Amino acid sequence: MTASATPADRAATIYDRDLDKNPANYQPLTPLSYLDRAARVFPDRVAVIHGPLRRSYAELYARCRRLASALAARGLGRGDTVAVMLANTPEMIECHYGVPMTGAVLNTLNTRLDAAGLAFCLDHGEAKVLITDREFSKVVGPALARAGVKPLVIDVDDPEYAGAGEALGETGYEDFLAAGDPAHEWAMPGDEWDAISLNYTSGTTGDPKGVVYHHRGAALLCLGNVITGGLGQHPVYLWTLPMFHCNGWCFAWTLSVVAGTHVCLRQVRAGPLYAALAEHGVTHLCGAPIVMQLLLNASDAERRPLPRRVAFMTAAAPPPQAVLAAMGEAGFDVTHLYGLTETYGPAVVNAWHGAWDALPEDERAAKMARQGVRYPVLEGFDVRDPETMDSVPADGETMGEAMFRGNVVMRGYLKNPSATRAAFKGGWFRSGDLGVKHPDGYIQLKDRSKDIIISGGENISSIEVEDALFRHPDVAAAAVVAKPDAKWGETPVAFVELKPGAVVEADALIAWCRDHLAAYKLPRHIVFEELPKTSTGKVQKFLLRERAKAM
Amino acid sequence: MTASATPADRAATIYDRDLDKNPANYQPLTPLSYLDRAARVFPDRVAVIHGPLRRSYAELYARCRRLASALAARGLGRGDTVAVMLANTPEMIECHYGVPMTGAVLNTLNTRLDAAGLAFCLDHGEAKVLITDREFSKVVGPALARAGVKPLVIDVDDPEYAGAGEALGETGYEDFLAAGDPAHEWAMPGDEWDAISLNYTSGTTGDPKGVVYHHRGAALLCLGNVITGGLGQHPVYLWTLPMFHCNGWCFAWTLSVVAGTHVCLRQVRAGPLYAALAEHGVTHLCGAPIVMQLLLNASDAERRPLPRRVAFMTAAAPPPQAVLAAMGEAGFDVTHLYGLTETYGPAVVNAWHGAWDALPEDERAAKMARQGVRYPVLEGFDVRDPETMDSVPADGETMGEAMFRGNVVMRGYLKNPSATRAAFKGGWFRSGDLGVKHPDGYIQLKDRSKDIIISGGENISSIEVEDALFRHPDVAAAAVVAKPDAKWGETPVAFVELKPGAVVEADALIAWCRDHLAAYKLPRHIVFEELPKTSTGKVQKFLLRERAKAM
Repeated sequence: MTASATPADRAATIYDRDLDKNPANYQPLTPLSYLDRAARVFPDRVAVIHGPLRRSYAELYARCRRLASALAARGLGRGDTVAVMLANTPEMIECHYGVPMTGAVLNTLNTRLDAAGLAFCLDHGEAKVLITDREFSKVVGPALARAGVKPLVIDVDDPEYAGAGEALGETGYEDFLAAGDPAHEWAMPGDEWDAISLNYTSGTTGDPKGVVYHHRGAALLCLGNVITGGLGQHPVYLWTLPMFHCNGWCFAWTLSVVAGTHVCLRQVRAGPLYAALAEHGVTHLCGAPIVMQLLLNASDAERRPLPRRVAFMTAAAPPPQAVLAAMGEAGFDVTHLYGLTETYGPAVVNAWHGAWDALPEDERAAKMARQGVRYPVLEGFDVRDPETMDSVPADGETMGEAMFRGNVVMRGYLKNPSATRAAFKGGWFRSGDLGVKHPDGYIQLKDRSKDIIISGGENISSIEVEDALFRHPDVAAAAVVAKPDAKWGETPVAFVELKPGAVVEADALIAWCRDHLAAYKLPRHIVFEELPKTSTGKVQKFLLRERAKAM
Repeated sequence: MTASATPADRAATIYDRDLDKNPANYQPLTPLSYLDRAARVFPDRVAVIHGPLRRSYAELYARCRRLASALAARGLGRGDTVAVMLANTPEMIECHYGVPMTGAVLNTLNTRLDAAGLAFCLDHGEAKVLITDREFSKVVGPALARAGVKPLVIDVDDPEYAGAGEALGETGYEDFLAAGDPAHEWAMPGDEWDAISLNYTSGTTGDPKGVVYHHRGAALLCLGNVITGGLGQHPVYLWTLPMFHCNGWCFAWTLSVVAGTHVCLRQVRAGPLYAALAEHGVTHLCGAPIVMQLLLNASDAERRPLPRRVAFMTAAAPPPQAVLAAMGEAGFDVTHLYGLTETYGPAVVNAWHGAWDALPEDERAAKMARQGVRYPVLEGFDVRDPETMDSVPADGETMGEAMFRGNVVMRGYLKNPSATRAAFKGGWFRSGDLGVKHPDGYIQLKDRSKDIIISGGENISSIEVEDALFRHPDVAAAAVVAKPDAKWGETPVAFVELKPGAVVEADALIAWCRDHLAAYKLPRHIVFEELPKTSTGKVQKFLLRERAKAM
């Protein structure tokens, strides 16, 4: 299919007369309407579990309306930013509804940011309100001191948090809500294109950019999540993915479509994970690969038998076959997704063909390693030449840039028109990820464009080298970056994290790689150390690149 | 939630700058994109079964593109009407995609219409093309002779049809397709508000009205169908609902979202139904209540064991508890839906609560008798006073009119601005159905507004009287209408269809009713006869009303 004809090309027909939009047949798409429905249809179903707390959908909705009404009473309205610094707690879910019910925009701050990073976000987003959990006061206090904006500060004091930290603001969250109206008549957004949330990129490269989501895209991704994730009616969803990350890939809203139960967790550790899985009959969770490691490496004391199989959706790097097999044995069915903050989180799925189950293990692993195909709610996903915009041949070899087009792509970067223009140049969102298109149309990433290593004029995919290292039984994680080299231009350097107790020499690892890689792709240096990661579990290659440069 | 603020009220904010729509982040919603995806991701999956024929998604897509290209070559384009007179055959599915791929509008004609009715639709819709199955030539020929328009006529000669009938047009469907391009680059609609189909109401009251659907609504209803119907991935769907009726409630498009299999059937008879269920592992079907009767009344020779439980979605009248119980025993799980042609078919579901399973049978039946709540993709469903537009109290007693609001409500009636205005007066679509709202928010219909019988100043719900009659073990179907009465204004008259072989006197039936109804609601006359029905199984009460008037 091709782009549509422009309106100017079109002459009026009988269908263009007296068939206009009106409130009866046109309403803005918004995920807020899903909560309204869930609370009306299933008022008594458990919406939120947090420690001993249980809240029904009626209660959740009433609290969200209280929040909206209290914010509106403080003058908050359309296009105002409400920043939140919260763990995966009930308050965080409430903010996902209560804030946009006022027309305001939810900016979920990355709880791992330092004071300078937080101050940047508060100022850049022009936050009018900050809702912050006591746990983070040690960094939020200095951030507020640094920031130019002076938001209304509201403190959350979660009964499940017993650690240090103090109240910073003029009011507590519960007091603030108490003043709100549980039957507040909030208004639908004026336009489905209105902003619903602001997500700063985690900044593996330079300054964070403020990614703006709109009501239309969020509403559609929710429907895509239900269908792609096979949520069914009334799933029980365990929170390990931070809700500050792409609004928890929009699952903060998605569960309302099917009146599911949110199981909150402040901290992702093996014991509480297994306890939640066992006690609440969890059906689905989303998580970074690190969560799989946690589950698989849990001690016998931490493990609990699962009452049922659990669907595990993971994004980022494709899970290695050994991990998938172990996860399957442990009771989890893993789906591999792909996306970026700019695409509301995953908008691509490794849609599995039943026939692939019968393939030999290595071929199955090769299928699973592919990022896949678009969600039903994404209109385009392709690999294109970033210069000519031509689609690359589906030969599994020709590299190009992975590009997205459709309704679950961000509006753009806040107050950054040049970055927005660059991202959308050519009418597609350019992911910056390089990959190939296989003959069956499935797309596989080979690298970030900036992670490609060019050695003696040859491209080396850092992912390919990492894969070779990872297959070694003693390797827990590996990251490969370029080191500037006078002769070759660049050469690969590997940073390797070994499994606990494992001992292996650099030479032995290089020899191992020789069996799996062309000679020019072999890492020239291997450094053994724990890899630096972002709060969402991505390896911070820019740090490693600096290290390699200094070597 | 309330209506949104008007755009004029809104001042520009930081989110209104440099964050505009562009092809990368905004595409028209359309169900056509679902077929494109299904054909790319699951090209080899069986899309269509018809007799011995099997076509994959790649083949279906290629044929749809051929059709679009051949139509475009004949000058068809945006806003042109293509009428089709087809049974539930593969060609009918292809028309649902190939026609709108050109920008044209699909008008599926009711195959039970007479020549005059067909000619009316052809003329009113200004059909440029008519694609017609040989079976219907005896009525289509005269219709073409009567009609003012002179469409290009294309004949379908289905190998599964061996009966009488002749070709009427200048070309056969297969020849027409053969000239088309299977790789045709069709264009997305210029605007998601563009018309995708035209559905004439079946005309239980006066002249048919041309209900216009748009791409946006169809795309959203598809997602709602997948979620509400629990279709999962790769359902096997049996066609009993005519595709000419609300585009088969949009399932002609819905299956592409999940790459399901269409099992076509020209005729709905018990033997072929059971054969299809047994041979193809059918998972889902939609059908009128009459299909349940067919399945339950099948002879032993016709019956086949089902390989799995089958989800059965039914609209129109709520299924009686006895029928539901029998269906459950026969292997079908029935979901009760509600909607109108104007709402793309069902947009309301009797969303079942697990806790209701434990209720005593009569209470369970009472729950099942309710039409229910809105789909997640419908923004509003309410019972309101048609004069004041006030929402009625949720007391289960106060009557009002069922009203819809949202994105799966029609654009309006073609070339009928006064009917469109009347339907949307007050900002809601007025269904003409009367009902109540229960304390839990579920809505139950009591009658069509024109079916209410007013006797001695008291309202009598014809549905309530029909329910009482239906509970009699010898009654197969019943319809109650008003008979003008000098003393009372109106009195109820019952038309009753008995079960095969059953014999019961009118007096005995009235006595039966006396045990279930207030005295003023008792039918004064009972007429035993087969009820006149529309092609979609609705009783034609206007005919009965005329009969009652003449009595």
